[in-house]
Amino acid sequence: MNRYKPIGIFDSGVGGLTVVREVLNLLPEEDIVYLGDTARVPYGIRSPETVTRYAIENTEFLLSLGIKALVVACNTVSAIGLEELQKRVDIPVLGVLKPGARAAAARTRNRRVGVIGTETTILSSSYQRAINEIDPEIKVYGLACPLFVPLVEEGWTDGEVVKAIVSRYLEGLRHRDIDTLVLGCTHYPLLKGPIAEVCGEGVTLIDSAVETAATLKDVLLTEGLLRDDENSLSKRLFFVTDAPERFRRIGERFLGERIDQIEKVVIPYHEHEII
Amino acid sequence: MNRYKPIGIFDSGVGGLTVVREVLNLLPEEDIVYLGDTARVPYGIRSPETVTRYAIENTEFLLSLGIKALVVACNTVSAIGLEELQKRVDIPVLGVLKPGARAAAARTRNRRVGVIGTETTILSSSYQRAINEIDPEIKVYGLACPLFVPLVEEGWTDGEVVKAIVSRYLEGLRHRDIDTLVLGCTHYPLLKGPIAEVCGEGVTLIDSAVETAATLKDVLLTEGLLRDDENSLSKRLFFVTDAPERFRRIGERFLGERIDQIEKVVIPYHEHEII
Repeated sequence: MNRYKPIGIFDSGVGGLTVVREVLNLLPEEDIVYLGDTARVPYGIRSPETVTRYAIENTEFLLSLGIKALVVACNTVSAIGLEELQKRVDIPVLGVLKPGARAAAARTRNRRVGVIGTETTILSSSYQRAINEIDPEIKVYGLACPLFVPLVEEGWTDGEVVKAIVSRYLEGLRHRDIDTLVLGCTHYPLLKGPIAEVCGEGVTLIDSAVETAATLKDVLLTEGLLRDDENSLSKRLFFVTDAPERFRRIGERFLGERIDQIEKVVIPYHEHEII
Repeated sequence: MNRYKPIGIFDSGVGGLTVVREVLNLLPEEDIVYLGDTARVPYGIRSPETVTRYAIENTEFLLSLGIKALVVACNTVSAIGLEELQKRVDIPVLGVLKPGARAAAARTRNRRVGVIGTETTILSSSYQRAINEIDPEIKVYGLACPLFVPLVEEGWTDGEVVKAIVSRYLEGLRHRDIDTLVLGCTHYPLLKGPIAEVCGEGVTLIDSAVETAATLKDVLLTEGLLRDDENSLSKRLFFVTDAPERFRRIGERFLGERIDQIEKVVIPYHEHEII
């Protein structure tokens, strides 16, 4: 495996760009190919079987581009389909769930952790299992916040209305006395401000994107896959399965920089456009 | 064509059930087959080409069940893909857009009409064109309200937070002096309460579901397709492309009654599950 190959990252849509952002912060010399499956977003409301099928198809596409490692920047897939992917491919495959779970277990003092995410992620109890594998004594309280994704995509990330929505959801954790809250969805870092405000200073927020980038660096280092050169021309290629202009418009907020090149692809390959 | 065949209705998800509800109110003796394309919802953020392709595939499925008429209970498809469907099939095909447009044109007094809907519906300007075909003098103001669909699906249809969200959007129509507002998305009837409250008494709300049911009755009558018997055992069959339990849970609020039988189908037919 060649260390000069790109890192592949996929998500159901634009959310994974928060992970790309942190990866680029930490590993600016790496090349990145990103796939946003915008034709089939959102994954969080779909059945586990469907999500796993989509994940396999996305992985096959990125593998065809010759990636050296795969980051599944989607909590829903990380929660329910990661092992299936790891079984199928022979490059390192990382999700966003375990890095977030590890950070939460490391940082909680009172062993009471909250996790917010999509309906599918929360119903899967995957964060709870991952945290309890590390420390079975930690109490984990999951809470689905389905409106956060559309809220962020609409660009509503601060102000009174947003704070009211965040408050209404987090009310569900009010009496749990948590000291740590995992942002278990790649969209949620954009709501860090209002979430922190509603939670108050006593609660540490865990941003899975930050933790995933750190884990990726460790893995690449361990596997001898980390680029060791100056690569001032590092490339970012973005693929989507639908609506590239919408991806650009919303995605630039997530990525924190301009997105120059977006290409539309059909996934799975054998599916032909009939019109 | 046999008048005892069912009426086919499809939507991208549960939203079309507001149309089913009004059809059942007006035509309780008719049999209904409904398809919610929950594996590919939401349509409102997808490109016109993709939406049209999905609509064709959904139509082919319903035709295979032997329907006598097709109602496209999805504003996005009605706005951009209806003519393509009408070209392809030889049964009556109705959308929700023209009935809503006709009602708006008939009821406005000051000839200033607002239309709210998904991004794709509003960007298509289809309501504006449909209304101006009837009366070119009417000023039509479109406004996309992307959060309304997730809000309704989350079951948030009243209370202060909802009213704040509705207010924030409708602020965009405040100075237009409209006297009529078209609810240009099948989810929006569930927000009629807060929308009416924010708009005030001077604005008439047009519910496309109600108008579409009335148009359907006219068309069936004209074509000799209206059932004329007592049919106390009228059947409703519901098909979805993913997550039937979620469809049931949310859908029963839309339909206003229990949903007994939901079957999951794969669309398009030739697509095979690979896991």
